Amino acid sequence: MTDLVAAAMAELARLWAGQTDPAHDLGHLARVWAHCQTLMAHETGVDAEALHLAVIFHDAARLPKDAPNRADAARLSAQIAGDWLAARGWPADRIASVTHAIEAHSFSAAIAPRTPLARILQDADRLEALGAIGLARMFAVTGAMGGALFHPEDPLALHRPLDDRAYGLDHLEVKLFAIVQTMQTPLGRAMAEERAEWMSSFRTRLLREIGGSGPQF
Amino acid sequence: MTDLVAAAMAELARLWAGQTDPAHDLGHLARVWAHCQTLMAHETGVDAEALHLAVIFHDAARLPKDAPNRADAARLSAQIAGDWLAARGWPADRIASVTHAIEAHSFSAAIAPRTPLARILQDADRLEALGAIGLARMFAVTGAMGGALFHPEDPLALHRPLDDRAYGLDHLEVKLFAIVQTMQTPLGRAMAEERAEWMSSFRTRLLREIGGSGPQF
Repeated sequence: MTDLVAAAMAELARLWAGQTDPAHDLGHLARVWAHCQTLMAHETGVDAEALHLAVIFHDAARLPKDAPNRADAARLSAQIAGDWLAARGWPADRIASVTHAIEAHSFSAAIAPRTPLARILQDADRLEALGAIGLARMFAVTGAMGGALFHPEDPLALHRPLDDRAYGLDHLEVKLFAIVQTMQTPLGRAMAEERAEWMSSFRTRLLREIGGSGPQF
Repeated sequence: MTDLVAAAMAELARLWAGQTDPAHDLGHLARVWAHCQTLMAHETGVDAEALHLAVIFHDAARLPKDAPNRADAARLSAQIAGDWLAARGWPADRIASVTHAIEAHSFSAAIAPRTPLARILQDADRLEALGAIGLARMFAVTGAMGGALFHPEDPLALHRPLDDRAYGLDHLEVKLFAIVQTMQTPLGRAMAEERAEWMSSFRTRLLREIGGSGPQF
């Protein structure tokens, strides 16, 4: 860890002080960085320090899931990173590679990642939404937002519109299963496919436990 | 469904109006009743209507997980059920079978179930804490209480005390795995064992995803 990375971590701890978000905490950052290191080993010419800094700042601006300006979180995070690095005299081209990666990692921003660094950050972050960790985060967010785990009579939404604000399980169809198609690197995509398949097997098991289409009272 | 059961459901809807609890909602009641019907088929002499009423009222008094009088929730729920049934002229012995079952279903009350009805309600309710549904409820409660999913450096609590208020995953060791030993009916116990084994496999997978003992940043 370079001095700059250590200073960035301290800055992030300051920014996040007093906040709680079970899906975006220091553990999330650690795992995203671990994924980045795995994915980076299969790519060439990636600025590892810039990638590490992009990881640290990618969720710097934490807005609630239901905030009206939620889609701005990545742009605001990129701005925080860019300002902080500029104040430390970092070269403009390296700053731009960090801010582009942060802006492009977001779903709602809908910005295509143009660089290996941005592709790796996006894949690494999205892997966290899948698999056992993705499931834990999904239901924790459900609980934090006061939603139900699933629709009691129609958990698969066969006869109703999907609504992942109201029903945690709907988030699989609304967002998570579609992540596989957005993966940017071959290894990231293979990992995402395996994790999505596991989530599907979880859902099958859950449906069996709760009685198929859900028991009627 | 008898008229009395329908009236009890209406009473519960009135009691729960305006409250949100992802782990104790109408879907939970429906699944507990479905389990009761499965378990009842292997027992004799169970008063099915009394059991149905016990299911409806077993969480009537909903206290937050962190409420100081949380341990009183089952006693308060039993009192609500008893008063409501007495006002409808139900016989005292049937009321007593309902209130005993509700009081004894609770962990924190530590009252041994003395009747088949009480044993079935306790088993049916505890099955909900295990398996895929148990996992979804566990992480939803974590999110609702503002906890972290797991300890980022020591998720298995090898070098720290367990703390399921702070770390959702700790709830497996603090409470959920031990449920198997408390099961009262042979079928309930077999179902609990299978569900606990699945939860253990979930934890193994989660640990693999997050890097064994947890990645360091």
